[in-house]
Amino acid sequence: MPRGGATIATIAREVGVSVPTVSRVLNGRSDVAPATRRRVEEALARHDYRKPVGPASPTKTAGLLDLVFHEFGSSWAQEIIVGVEKAAAPRRVGVVLSELGGSHRPPQEWIDSITARGTRGVLLVLSRLDDTQQRQLMARSIPFVVLDTDGETPAGVPTVGSNNWSGGLAATRHLIELGHRRVAIISGPENVLCSRARVDGFRSAHTEIGLDVDPSLVRWGTFEVEGGYEHGLELLRRSDRPTAVFAGSDVQALGFIRAAHELGLRVPEDVSVVGYDDLPLASWLAPSLTTVRQPLAEMAALATQMLIALSDGEPLASQKVELGTELIIRESTAPPA
Amino acid sequence: MPRGGATIATIAREVGVSVPTVSRVLNGRSDVAPATRRRVEEALARHDYRKPVGPASPTKTAGLLDLVFHEFGSSWAQEIIVGVEKAAAPRRVGVVLSELGGSHRPPQEWIDSITARGTRGVLLVLSRLDDTQQRQLMARSIPFVVLDTDGETPAGVPTVGSNNWSGGLAATRHLIELGHRRVAIISGPENVLCSRARVDGFRSAHTEIGLDVDPSLVRWGTFEVEGGYEHGLELLRRSDRPTAVFAGSDVQALGFIRAAHELGLRVPEDVSVVGYDDLPLASWLAPSLTTVRQPLAEMAALATQMLIALSDGEPLASQKVELGTELIIRESTAPPA
Repeated sequence: MPRGGATIATIAREVGVSVPTVSRVLNGRSDVAPATRRRVEEALARHDYRKPVGPASPTKTAGLLDLVFHEFGSSWAQEIIVGVEKAAAPRRVGVVLSELGGSHRPPQEWIDSITARGTRGVLLVLSRLDDTQQRQLMARSIPFVVLDTDGETPAGVPTVGSNNWSGGLAATRHLIELGHRRVAIISGPENVLCSRARVDGFRSAHTEIGLDVDPSLVRWGTFEVEGGYEHGLELLRRSDRPTAVFAGSDVQALGFIRAAHELGLRVPEDVSVVGYDDLPLASWLAPSLTTVRQPLAEMAALATQMLIALSDGEPLASQKVELGTELIIRESTAPPA
Repeated sequence: MPRGGATIATIAREVGVSVPTVSRVLNGRSDVAPATRRRVEEALARHDYRKPVGPASPTKTAGLLDLVFHEFGSSWAQEIIVGVEKAAAPRRVGVVLSELGGSHRPPQEWIDSITARGTRGVLLVLSRLDDTQQRQLMARSIPFVVLDTDGETPAGVPTVGSNNWSGGLAATRHLIELGHRRVAIISGPENVLCSRARVDGFRSAHTEIGLDVDPSLVRWGTFEVEGGYEHGLELLRRSDRPTAVFAGSDVQALGFIRAAHELGLRVPEDVSVVGYDDLPLASWLAPSLTTVRQPLAEMAALATQMLIALSDGEPLASQKVELGTELIIRESTAPPA
């Protein structure tokens, strides 16, 4: 990250306020008039200001990092939490959970509160910070790492993800090798990069054996269970129903299997199902779920280690890390009837 | 909580150390020799010392509460987190997660770290604090609330639970009313109060119609999926296998259903299954799971509200609150073949 040459004195002079006022904005204090605060923020952004990193203040920041979800309800939040705790505990770092956005956690107030309280840094799970918010964290020298990514993270933002394209390719190849020729995919939202990568992997597996993709079998949705259920009912009620489906998450696969059950179809005899994630659940279902293992806990642990290193002022070996995915074959896939 | 009359000056005089030394122990500072620290702790306990609660220091404590699990991996941790966040967010209180115990989070170090950092209070989920630890929190005037309870919590410790005995009674009555006469129960650990309450409810449902309980059908274990699976294999391989089972948790029920599947038995045609908790999963399984709904998120939200009230110095209407449980009948139970 390039570091602007400005000091808070420069900023104060330019905006025409006192140095303590600039300092109060940087420290998340609420006793600054909104208009003043806005002018200070603008000047900080203009100068690409970076708060000098002094010796750590152990009473304030030694102990906490902020783990920020877009939504806790997300099916794999628990895997992430387990991974973060695994990396944070040996360093005696406490983990503060936040759900960012929604009426109760407006981003500006959240940034002020973590600044006032002190944090080692912020781990963002599929949560977007806009450019202004990223600049605000940088100006306060609060490091952040993005886990997975639902959009293009800017260069210089440390990111841990997994190879979604390869996952999509492996899952679809497996179904094609079993003999399936009508394969559906239920992915996540179309504007989310990982969803698109998986769909592209799905297409590539078709292309490499000269098979066309029926566009009506490519479904976008959410990664949650309802998405699998609703698309499942629609797909399976068709006279030309697919003989196999690749779902965007294990819980989406669960919803799809539920839809099949309600329509009297058996898995895998009547329809094969591949999930994504390999949550602990996947191996316990009956039939157990063939799925693409995404090492969520390891990804979370690695992102946490990166964040702690950054907060200790250590350089990162790499800004972008992608862990591999792996197809786990279990009972929910079989040759077509 | 009775309040001892001692001041830190009394304690310092008695132990023969300076007032700042006693203060350092109470503030979680590490720069006190272990032997001195021990003598100070003993004197604090002897005098039942309570740190005077002054005006809240907003920079340190306004924003955080500590949510402490025995284990994150626990199947229903996510429900609890959702409930806590729901109650904490509108008050702008951040939630710090801890897994207490294990080599990385020794309780003494944890108490020192939360004291040094500041907290509104501690919410304990199925986690035991021993008497010493409870006294240490009280001496530092850190309020705590216990969610559910795996043992007898002392009088005066605010507790939120649910009615486990009624849950066990309702689940077992349902199976008996369907015509089952050989019903097994797989509960949690025998030394955990909620497990025993459910087994007692199970027995009562038998007694009220003059049915004997076969002691070999009463199983103790963990609430995790493996417990349901292993007891399931054992119970279902018997020539006099039960025709129905009441499991201690939904994930235990999942493990039991997996065992039935491996042995070629169908649910509910060959064996009926009732779970406990009503996790979101329960309604999506195929067959969907008959279960005892335990309002985990509501329990967690209520416990959080109680904790925040205590930290604001407000009195509680009641120290012990028990929410009701409710039987939810779905597809996994049917009359015996």
